[in-house]
Amino acid sequence: MLTLATIKHINELQQKKHRAAAHEFIVEGLKGVQEALENEAEVLLVVMDGNIRDEADMQALIKLAGEHEAQVEFCGRKDIGQIKTTDTFPGVLAIVSSPDIGLDQISFGPIVALDGIKDPGNLGTIIRTADWFGIQNILLAEDTVDPYNPKVVRSTMGSMFRTSIFESNSLETSLATLKEKYGYRVVSLEMKGEPLPQKLLKNLEENVIFLFGSESHGVRPGLEKLIDVRYTIPGRGQAESLNVAVAAAIVMSRV
Amino acid sequence: MLTLATIKHINELQQKKHRAAAHEFIVEGLKGVQEALENEAEVLLVVMDGNIRDEADMQALIKLAGEHEAQVEFCGRKDIGQIKTTDTFPGVLAIVSSPDIGLDQISFGPIVALDGIKDPGNLGTIIRTADWFGIQNILLAEDTVDPYNPKVVRSTMGSMFRTSIFESNSLETSLATLKEKYGYRVVSLEMKGEPLPQKLLKNLEENVIFLFGSESHGVRPGLEKLIDVRYTIPGRGQAESLNVAVAAAIVMSRV
Repeated sequence: MLTLATIKHINELQQKKHRAAAHEFIVEGLKGVQEALENEAEVLLVVMDGNIRDEADMQALIKLAGEHEAQVEFCGRKDIGQIKTTDTFPGVLAIVSSPDIGLDQISFGPIVALDGIKDPGNLGTIIRTADWFGIQNILLAEDTVDPYNPKVVRSTMGSMFRTSIFESNSLETSLATLKEKYGYRVVSLEMKGEPLPQKLLKNLEENVIFLFGSESHGVRPGLEKLIDVRYTIPGRGQAESLNVAVAAAIVMSRV
Repeated sequence: MLTLATIKHINELQQKKHRAAAHEFIVEGLKGVQEALENEAEVLLVVMDGNIRDEADMQALIKLAGEHEAQVEFCGRKDIGQIKTTDTFPGVLAIVSSPDIGLDQISFGPIVALDGIKDPGNLGTIIRTADWFGIQNILLAEDTVDPYNPKVVRSTMGSMFRTSIFESNSLETSLATLKEKYGYRVVSLEMKGEPLPQKLLKNLEENVIFLFGSESHGVRPGLEKLIDVRYTIPGRGQAESLNVAVAAAIVMSRV
């Protein structure tokens, strides 16, 4: 049984201001909750549809939650009707604590920095792609879509629990700090740059920041002075640009 | 002034069955309508918000429509309230005739074949990326999302007017025909294949089909026997898979 207070709290976490205040967010669906537990995210509560608790994958999830000392609550039809989710109730969800990671906790090696990405699907896809190519660090500008937005969380397909997401208050200051203190180079993708080489790094420990601008406006002017190299993905057709998640993926595939 | 019949027709074109029956679809927004006209799509009617007709870019669009002998109708607030669009009324839209392209009209060279892609954003992004890399031919399986769905049209960013989209009734038959009659090779992207090489084609006239399966189920079993080479995008992290539009983009970037 869920208390009304819990249902209210889950519903509030649909909104960014409540997520920021509570330092918590919602992970929807079996796969996401499983990944959160397996990757040692701080899972505060698992909420499961009581009608499917006997299904094999739900039983496995209950066991996994037990191993990680995460509390599981079951809910009925009436509760489900009151819980707000992105689509229909996905059978199971979890309240997870959002880590507050500072630049000083960076593990070094390549960083994907995003300036003003607004589309949740694009951000989620970039995080998922970074995880695929073994890039650990994601640095988000102050006006990027909230990474704990349910649509972002869903489209990362669990990869957000395996990457470190740094939310910057000023991307300009963060980039300058990383350059000065840790000798990072900043590589950006733009319409007019050198052709993107086949291989971008000598090794995966190199301190390079790959900077991608917003879907519509590219990188903001204030960052220009911090960029060391500008690359372009050579095209042959007449399309004006590539989707930012696609462009980022092509760059990451050459790391 | 729009007639009620025109408004009804525009609204019906939100639905796949009506699009298929009329062989028409809706393009929303300035950029899309402009691209449709410039790329010689058959634009049947341009519908513009009368309140913004004096803006410079709308004036330019009216001139462009005139050059292409496309009719322009202006609508008022009341009409706009009755017209169904993906989001709020985008200022301008057009009714465009959907071409019926057969395999015999193929221009040869590489083809991107998609099996069961369900997400409109993914399909639109793949078409846009193909256009960027100069790949002219898109072949869609029978259960792929409708390419004339407004969300697909919007996310192609005009690229759908520069590519040839073949809607197959049976992808299996179409692939077999292309192999037998035109000597195409079928290359697929799978979880367990050879590592994707840096360069996939000797030249852009090579008859190769790049086959991508659905977001969740991959390529259907019936197609297996038609595949000549299987590639995998090597990853280093723990993500289970890449988004299909991302995977397709990485392959196309090596064509």
